[in-house]
Amino acid sequence: MGEGREQNEAFVTLATNDTYALGCLVLGSSLRRVGTTRQLAVMVTSGVSQSMRQQLGGLFNQVVEVNVLDSSDTCNLELLGRPDLSVTFTKFHCWRLTQYQKCVFMDADTLVVQNVDELFDREELSAAPDAGWPDCFNSGVFVYVPSEQTYRNLLSFAVTGGSFDGGDQGLLNLYFNKWATEDIGKHLPFTFNVVSQAFYSYLPAFKQFYDNIKVVHFIGAVKPWHHAYNTASRTVTQLPGTGHSQQFLQMWWNIFMDSVQPNLDPQLYESSVVS
Amino acid sequence: MGEGREQNEAFVTLATNDTYALGCLVLGSSLRRVGTTRQLAVMVTSGVSQSMRQQLGGLFNQVVEVNVLDSSDTCNLELLGRPDLSVTFTKFHCWRLTQYQKCVFMDADTLVVQNVDELFDREELSAAPDAGWPDCFNSGVFVYVPSEQTYRNLLSFAVTGGSFDGGDQGLLNLYFNKWATEDIGKHLPFTFNVVSQAFYSYLPAFKQFYDNIKVVHFIGAVKPWHHAYNTASRTVTQLPGTGHSQQFLQMWWNIFMDSVQPNLDPQLYESSVVS
Ligand SMILES: O=c1ccn([C@@H]2O[C@H](COP(=O)(O)OP(=O)(O)O)[C@@H](O)[C@H]2O)c(=O)[nH]1
Ligand SMILES: O=c1ccn([C@@H]2O[C@H](COP(=O)(O)OP(=O)(O)O)[C@@H](O)[C@H]2O)c(=O)[nH]1
Ligand SMILES: [Mn+2]
Ligand SMILES: [Mn+2]
Repeated sequence: MGEGREQNEAFVTLATNDTYALGCLVLGSSLRRVGTTRQLAVMVTSGVSQSMRQQLGGLFNQVVEVNVLDSSDTCNLELLGRPDLSVTFTKFHCWRLTQYQKCVFMDADTLVVQNVDELFDREELSAAPDAGWPDCFNSGVFVYVPSEQTYRNLLSFAVTGGSFDGGDQGLLNLYFNKWATEDIGKHLPFTFNVVSQAFYSYLPAFKQFYDNIKVVHFIGAVKPWHHAYNTASRTVTQLPGTGHSQQFLQMWWNIFMDSVQPNLDPQLYESSVVS
Repeated sequence: MGEGREQNEAFVTLATNDTYALGCLVLGSSLRRVGTTRQLAVMVTSGVSQSMRQQLGGLFNQVVEVNVLDSSDTCNLELLGRPDLSVTFTKFHCWRLTQYQKCVFMDADTLVVQNVDELFDREELSAAPDAGWPDCFNSGVFVYVPSEQTYRNLLSFAVTGGSFDGGDQGLLNLYFNKWATEDIGKHLPFTFNVVSQAFYSYLPAFKQFYDNIKVVHFIGAVKPWHHAYNTASRTVTQLPGTGHSQQFLQMWWNIFMDSVQPNLDPQLYESSVVS
């Protein structure tokens, strides 16, 4: 691999507030831990505090402020009439990071367990199947090529057509609608985006392929940072009925306590986590 | 399509008892209802009564008695030492129906909603992703090519390696282990094997792709025939917590009451369903 790729390829994540930013910090730490050679970039909106941006800046190579509704692109007017779409659109901003030649977007609620730099050998749009409806890809992890044109196309498409699930996943699946049928190379193995609840839906497969798991994704309303952590025993206790994998939840917290929490502004930690 | 394909290609299902045979009758009726031009075959074991075999014979072109443990193949001795595998192996018997050139196996708990004859244009082994772990295919619907050699290979493989989930799905996925990565043509759309619970796991996708649904699969311990049916109102009431799609459950019962129940030996109906 040439020097070029180390500079020109990046993992990209997103936080619109300080709580999701904690997820970004754990994700970024998990990527460093497995020795990624690529750049780390995080997109933040005005909801992320200055103190948190400083933390992010200590881990990520780039902290990019994004704000769709303030942008000066041609779709702006239409967008102003649809404020409901603004959070969805914030993720699409990742296509504007044209300083990179190829990127892997990862949700703030993902955790990297093994090195995944090989993802940069894939083409746009590569993603893993969604466990709920596997003809759709899950938009928590995807390989893409930054391009202002694609960004504009996505926005026009969203404004005219809209998303079938009200989120970015429904829209991206309609836009990249050949994913299910066209090219097996664009199907990332599920092990690159294992929903943490999968051990519940098909436990034998979870066990069989456990050693291959590279990325865990804590989808749903309850996130790792919502569970109770006991600092004395260093163990996490799950909220009832959430069905997260205990092993991976504990791994998330180990990384949080070892690599993230010691550097946090104590006030920030209190307000974000202990609530 | 030439005459040949109508005779040489078959839908194949399986029942080891009279209850599952009711599922086969509904499945077969649903295939007739959508005007399939192919043969219908059902494999039965000694657990299926004579009366039920007669019913099956009125709908299916072929009723084939199978019994792995009594078969005279070379793996017989090893198999006798592993009775736990016998139900799993019964499904593999479908590879021995070499009177057909190509087949589509369908579980007895599947329901065909739209014509699926196009499946015979696919190659072995084509199947849809499993919603629980989508790098595995679900073995409730698959396209295959009958072959005594493949049957023997599967048996040897099972005896030496075994299945990771104790069932046919785990074994078939290890045997056809390039499915996830090799050929997009062997990925049937999920609409050819939609688990009835999918509307719960990703409702927006279920709604978006509802009109494309071709086969519904009632996986899990609770089957359509377990629910309570009110003959006066002609409606089915779900057992609590099973999460089947109400629409498709009702469709299953409509077909059962219209096409299956009227021809059943009353005694058989009582003993199989009302219990
Ligand atoms: O209030 C929010 C909601 C979402 N996100 C970002 O958008 C991603 C997708 O949302 P989420 O992971 O909550 O959705 P899920 O994976 O549960 O469907 C998150 O991981 C974050 O990167 C965010 O920054 N703030
Ligand atoms: O006692 C049994 C169990 C299974 N089967 C056959 O094997 C298939 C697979 O089992 P099932 O559908 O119950 O498994 P699931 O789809 O729920 O995993 C059934 O549809 C039947 O065709 C059978 O005949 N008798
Ligand atoms: Mn997520
Ligand atoms: Mn089944």
